[in-house]
Order: sequence, then C-alpha cells, then structure tokens
Amino acid sequence: MSIPAAYGDTAPIAAIATAAGEGALALIRTSGEHCLELLGDVFSRSEKLLKAAGNTIVHGWIIGTGGEKIDEVLISVYRGPRTYTGEDGADISCHGGIAAAKAIMETLRGTGFRDSLPGEFSFRAFMNGKLDLTRAESVMEIVSAKTGLAREHAVHRLSGALEKEIRGINTIIVQALGASEIFLDYSEDDGIGAENNSETEAAEAVGLLPDRPLVEEALERLKILAASYRRERLYAEGALGVIAGRPNAGKSSLFNMLLHEDRSIVTDVPGTTRDWIEAWVSIEGIPVRLTDTAGIHPSEDPVEKLGMERSRQLLSEADMILYVIDGTEGITPEDRDFLRDHRTLPVILLWNKADLAFPPSSQFSPAASFRPVSAKTGAGISGLSREMAGVLEKRFSGGREGNAWNPAGIGTARQKELIDRAAAALEEALALADRAEPLDLIAPLLREGVNALGEITGEVSTAEILNTMFSRFCVGK
Amino acid sequence: MSIPAAYGDTAPIAAIATAAGEGALALIRTSGEHCLELLGDVFSRSEKLLKAAGNTIVHGWIIGTGGEKIDEVLISVYRGPRTYTGEDGADISCHGGIAAAKAIMETLRGTGFRDSLPGEFSFRAFMNGKLDLTRAESVMEIVSAKTGLAREHAVHRLSGALEKEIRGINTIIVQALGASEIFLDYSEDDGIGAENNSETEAAEAVGLLPDRPLVEEALERLKILAASYRRERLYAEGALGVIAGRPNAGKSSLFNMLLHEDRSIVTDVPGTTRDWIEAWVSIEGIPVRLTDTAGIHPSEDPVEKLGMERSRQLLSEADMILYVIDGTEGITPEDRDFLRDHRTLPVILLWNKADLAFPPSSQFSPAASFRPVSAKTGAGISGLSREMAGVLEKRFSGGREGNAWNPAGIGTARQKELIDRAAAALEEALALADRAEPLDLIAPLLREGVNALGEITGEVSTAEILNTMFSRFCVGK
Repeated sequence: MSIPAAYGDTAPIAAIATAAGEGALALIRTSGEHCLELLGDVFSRSEKLLKAAGNTIVHGWIIGTGGEKIDEVLISVYRGPRTYTGEDGADISCHGGIAAAKAIMETLRGTGFRDSLPGEFSFRAFMNGKLDLTRAESVMEIVSAKTGLAREHAVHRLSGALEKEIRGINTIIVQALGASEIFLDYSEDDGIGAENNSETEAAEAVGLLPDRPLVEEALERLKILAASYRRERLYAEGALGVIAGRPNAGKSSLFNMLLHEDRSIVTDVPGTTRDWIEAWVSIEGIPVRLTDTAGIHPSEDPVEKLGMERSRQLLSEADMILYVIDGTEGITPEDRDFLRDHRTLPVILLWNKADLAFPPSSQFSPAASFRPVSAKTGAGISGLSREMAGVLEKRFSGGREGNAWNPAGIGTARQKELIDRAAAALEEALALADRAEPLDLIAPLLREGVNALGEITGEVSTAEILNTMFSRFCVGK
Repeated sequence: MSIPAAYGDTAPIAAIATAAGEGALALIRTSGEHCLELLGDVFSRSEKLLKAAGNTIVHGWIIGTGGEKIDEVLISVYRGPRTYTGEDGADISCHGGIAAAKAIMETLRGTGFRDSLPGEFSFRAFMNGKLDLTRAESVMEIVSAKTGLAREHAVHRLSGALEKEIRGINTIIVQALGASEIFLDYSEDDGIGAENNSETEAAEAVGLLPDRPLVEEALERLKILAASYRRERLYAEGALGVIAGRPNAGKSSLFNMLLHEDRSIVTDVPGTTRDWIEAWVSIEGIPVRLTDTAGIHPSEDPVEKLGMERSRQLLSEADMILYVIDGTEGITPEDRDFLRDHRTLPVILLWNKADLAFPPSSQFSPAASFRPVSAKTGAGISGLSREMAGVLEKRFSGGREGNAWNPAGIGTARQKELIDRAAAALEEALALADRAEPLDLIAPLLREGVNALGEITGEVSTAEILNTMFSRFCVGK
C-alpha cells in the first residue's frame, strides 16, 4: 500500500493537543524517530529524560535556543512499540493559555520537530497496527460528542463493538465466498464444454448452494447496521429545532424555559452558540440546536425584515418546529397560514399561557392537537422534552422505526457508504442467484462485499482513503 | 494562621485543567488524601494503579458505577511530598472535547472527589511550602499571557526573580530595623530621665544611625519595582487602540494591514474578538486590542447611529487613537473638529493614500505631524508599529520614562499595593528621621515595611488575603 508522502514518514512530529483557550494546563504531544533525543536538546534535565523508562514522568524546564527558560513542564515519556502511535513519544504538560504552548512549539520546531498533520498520531497508530479504522474514527467522535449519550455510543465503537460486528459479518461472507469459489473451481475444472453447460450447472448450483443462508444473514446484519446510522448521527450531530409563532406568543419565554429546564446544557464551548437567541440544549440526550426566531409578520423596518429573512431560512432547515400559540388570543388567521405553509415538517403545536386559557378540545381543531404549556409556570415543559425526543427519534429512525439501539451502530458517513456498498453487492448476488445466473458472476459480488467491509476496518485500504479520512481529524489526534 | 474551611482541608479534589473546547486531549487533575485509592475504585486496572510508583503512567479505562466504560485514559501518578501540591495526586489524560471530561468528572464525584475551588491546587502547593505567593501568581499570569513577551516576563517571576528581589529588600530593612531596635533598647535602658532626653538623643541618633543608607537603598529598589508595574500590565493585559477617521479614509484597509503585517496575532481563542471589526494584534510584543470604528458623521439612520454611539464609547476608553486622513482629500473641517475634541488622548495622525498624495509639510500644520502611510501598498506600516509601541510604552511607563525592563518586575495589583505600602512606610520613616523624631516612632514604620513585603511572598499572610488571592485563579490551577 502506498501512502501519501506527508502521512507516510516517521519524522518527529509535535502538536498542541488540548483546546485553545484559557485553562490551567495545556498538553503538547510528540512522536516519531529520535523524538526523545530531540526533546533532550531543549530540556533542562536532558540526561534524566534520555535515561527515563517508558511510562514515566520527568520534571524540568523547556529551554530556548538562547538558554532562556521557556516554561516549567512535566514530560511523560513513552517508549515504542507499546505506545499510542507505536513509536517513541512524549507528552509535554505545560502551563495553560496560548503563549506557553506556542512558545514551546516554536522551540520544538527549532530542534527538528515538524507540526503534525491532522490525525497524524492516529494515522501512525493505524499503520503500526494499534487501531483499526472504526476505532480511530470513534476517537474523533468522542472528541466532538455533544452529549453524554453521543459519547457513550462512540465509546462502544472505541471498545471495538463495531469492529467485531464488521469482522463477524465479513467472516460469514468469506465462508460463503469460499464455498462458491470451490464450486466455481470445480465447474471451471470441467474444461471444454463447461461454458456451454454453465447455465444449467449454475441453475443446479442455486439449489445446492450451501452459502445462500450465510449471505442472507450477512445482508440482514448489514441492513441493521445501515439503519443505525441516521440515529447515531442524530445523537452525534444533533438536530435543529426552531421556535416560531406570532409576536408576543411567548417564544422567548419558552426558549429560556427549555434552556433552564434541561440543566445538562450541551456545550460551554465558546463559538458554538451564534447569538443570544440560539443555544444547544440536551433534549433527553439528543443535542438540539434550539433557536428562537423573530415573529413573522408584515413590516417595513429593515432590521425586522432581516430578522424575518433569517427566520425563513432557519425554518427551511429545521428538523422540528415548536409553534407557539398565545392561548389568551387563540388561533389567528396568521397561525393558520403558517401551519398550512409548513405542513411537510414535524411541528409540535404549543398552546402557551395554558395557565390562563385552556386549549380547545380536539373537536374544534381536528387537524391538530395542542400541547398545553405555560412558559411562565413551567407546566408541561418536561412532557414537551419527551415529545421532542420522540419526534426526532422518529424522523431519524432510518426507516426502521422503533428498533432498539444497536451498540455496534455506525458512526461515520464513510462507514455508512461502505456498508451500503457491501449490502448492495450482496443483494445483487442474491438476485443473480435467484435468476440462476452462473457463479462466476456471483462470486465477484461477494468479493466486493468483503472488500467494502475490509475498507471499514482498514484491512483493505488505499492511500487516498487513508489520506481523506485522517485529514478530517483534528491536529494532535 | 487560620484558613477558610473550604480552602484549608486536604480532601480529594478534581478539576478539568485544560481549556473547554474541541481538542485531541483533555486533562483532569486530582490531588488530596486517598486520591489514588479513590481513583482505583473507578479504574479498570486498579491494582496496577495502586502499586504504581510516583511519576509513572498507567493505561486503562475509567469505569462507571454500572460497570460501563467511560473513557480510555492515561493516569499520571504522583506521590507526595515531591509533587506540585505536595500531596498524592494524579493527572488523567482523556479524550478531548467536553463529553469525555465531563463524564469522568461525574464519575469522580461519585467516588468521593469534590470539585476543586479556583486556585486550590496552587493554594495547597503554597501551604505545603512548594511555591511562594509571587510564583503562584506568576502561574496565572503565564496562563493568561497574550504575547510571548508577557509570558517571558511572567516566567521570570515563576523562576523566582521577583521573590529574590523582595527577599533581598526585606533583608536590608530587617538589618536597618535590627540596628534601630538595638539603639532603641539601649535608649530605653537609660531608665528615668531618658524620656526627657529623647529628643536630643534621637537627634544624635540620626547622625549616628547606621541604618539610614540601608533604608534609602531599600526605598530606591521599591520605587524601581513600583515603576515596573504599569508597563508589566501593558504587556500582560494590553491596550486599546482605536482607528478613527472620516468614512472612506481607509480605516478598514489599515485595520486589515495591521492584522496581516503583524503575523504574530495574539489570540486564536474564540470569544476574545467581539466582532469582525475588532482583533487582538501583537504590536512589537504589546497586545493591542485594535478596533475599527464606524466613521463619525451626521446621520439619521438608526443602524448607523448605533455604530457611532459604539465608536464614541470606544474612543472614550482608548489608550491610543490612529486617526486616518484621506490624503487625496486633505484635511477637512470634520477632521479638525475630531482632533480638537480628542486632544487629551495620544493620537497618531496617519496620512493615508500617501502613494497618491503627499502629506503637507509640517509648516502648513504646525499642530501635528503626519505619518505618511499607504494601507493599499503597505508603505509605512512597519514604522507605524514601532511608533505605536513607543506611544504605548510612554503612556504606561509609570512615571519613569525610558527605564530599562526590570526582570524582577511586578505582575499583580496585589504586589503593587503592598510595595506602595512598604515604600510609603519607609518614606515616612526617613521623614521622621529627618525631623529627628524618636526611634520608637520610626522602628514601627520599618516593621510595617517588612510586613508588607512578607505579605507579597506569603511569609506573612492572613486567611482573607489568601482566600481573595487564590479564588481569582482559574479552576484546575
């Protein structure tokens, strides 16, 4: 397998591995040939560092080229091959903030380290047989997990649940393939005349084929995996929930109530919340980007117009709309217009200020049922959370509504695509078998399935695949 | 010394020590009694952990109460007293992002750790004699350093340069105090009649006093320290530079040019830049929050009005104004009005588009000289950086213009206040000596100076002082 030059070498690499920003500590990760010797050149206790056993920690100062102290650090020494990357490496724990880590990186560059490429540590781990690709990918999933549940799912993949399932399915197909190819070899051995007879023989083979139940089992398990994808994405990436309604219906109060009711607010990362009317919340473990929109109503004010344009955009992207009706005013023609225009999206109708005015019984509004809430008193909000989660689960159920959560669920688009490819190949193989096509047409399809699954774990891989995959990782991973 | 209960115990504490946000790794810091035993309860390789020597690393999984895997981690084991805090402790290196670190913290709480208070690790280090207060404070300065230079200055304090200088000054005062008190004891031993003669004796004492040159030396060194403060703050906290000028004078181009010219942009922390017309830049190592303002001109547009209101606010807070004149239009009455209204602030006058139109010679504008620049070609920009640094150095020179940088500069308001208090006490002592006041009035002033300096390093400290100081630290430090 040829590897793109940049990713393929064993040069000493370094990266700031912790998030940028103010914190007590930061961590710089290094790995590669002569890693510890090079570090020794810029460390106050060089001899101690060079003699340090693997998995031990040395305290000292990083020293600049002019002999000046850069920062007081702890260096964790790792000696290959029993390390994350399989190579010699070291983690430098320095003071937090930006300046210290930047200054150390500058010093490391001066002594022969280069900045690591995105995902390069994991890439090396993969190349050295430390991680299969599903586990490598799960590492990035854990890093970007927005809720505890998303993290839990990714941890299962890191533990190898998906790898095991993929390898299990692969074994079955290989078994089936082995059986087919033996048969194929035999029929080819027939020599002259075999070609003429191939149709009859293949037809007979269908009946005899010991592999059909195996292929069917593999296909069923692939379909279960494929079906897990959308829901896994829902937990990993979240959904967009838009609050809409007429001005003063209580949209902002509802927004605030949902924010505070669900105390497990998903993120405190600066930058993920674009402004004060948008926030990530955890709705029963599902990350929901909840956004409060400007009321949509006729206006000539340019600022208001801008707000409404933004609202329309958000509504067109929404996975779910919470439509707030002011219970004290009842349903207005504007409400009806809105609901008619957004029939294709999942809408939860909220009868707000239910503490002041009861919602109409369903006979008066046959088209929809209202959930009574009071954004003021908080009544009905926790029930609303459960309904929201249900609506999203349904929307993201991947066509297999209500299926139980699969611990070997798939986590990335790459995995999904390869599983679909394997499933399609197996489906075609079965269809050909049904039509009594010859085995030499069927066997390559099974082989295609094996290859696709091999790509998921990395047993089969190409330079481009690896390059594309790891370059999406963050630096330092 | 009594310590506020919360800070005073040795309970096992834990904190996420790295910045919040997406990164490859995060670090959780723990310390305190039974720290390692408690960790063993939630770790997959408990026995290995409990047997681990100090400064070694153990690999395994954090396990939840239900036996579920929380995250794959490396635990760095520290055994007191040769640790940062002086206690047993452990750093848990886990996957980055928020979810993993949060889930581990939750698990730690369940096993008996409590969340650490701000600065509690450093507090314990101080209490166990690992750090004096100036070094403890420098740790926080390093964390929040915005430029390499600010970090360098703080590192000097971490190395003990300030502690050494303070202790040196203190020794001198103690010497002087010793000499005075011997004299005082002697004069008291005079017994009856001594009081009547005190004036004469004190007057004689002034002449005899072996400590006066010592006190004078101490005072001079304190004044040098005090003078270092404003400049240290300039490097640590930065200054506000506001770009102003008529519409289309080239303010935005100048802003962009300064941003790109100085490649050592100070921060990539999300959240420190409020909007697209504001950024932190490093001007010769000085962090400058540079902001581009809306042109100030009459307008009825509400959005424009809002922008101008913001501009006025910024101008009132500015440390320096870059005023841009459109060279092709020359100086307009509006420019004159602006400059007249902002006479009290340091203004650098920029004659922009100097590639198209030369600035007037100073004889035509005796009140000010223009710096020719071209925001388009970049001409004059690097000279501008140097002038900006000069203007700020002068503004923040603390009354001692042009004094060389002092490696033992002071870094915090607390230090400054105590140095001022010590200096004031010494000045009063010298004044009393000049007026031939009795030694029993002078000696307490010297003692006050000694106490103030002792507070800086923490030799003398009270519960309230420590509480206030460490609670300003970040959590995990």
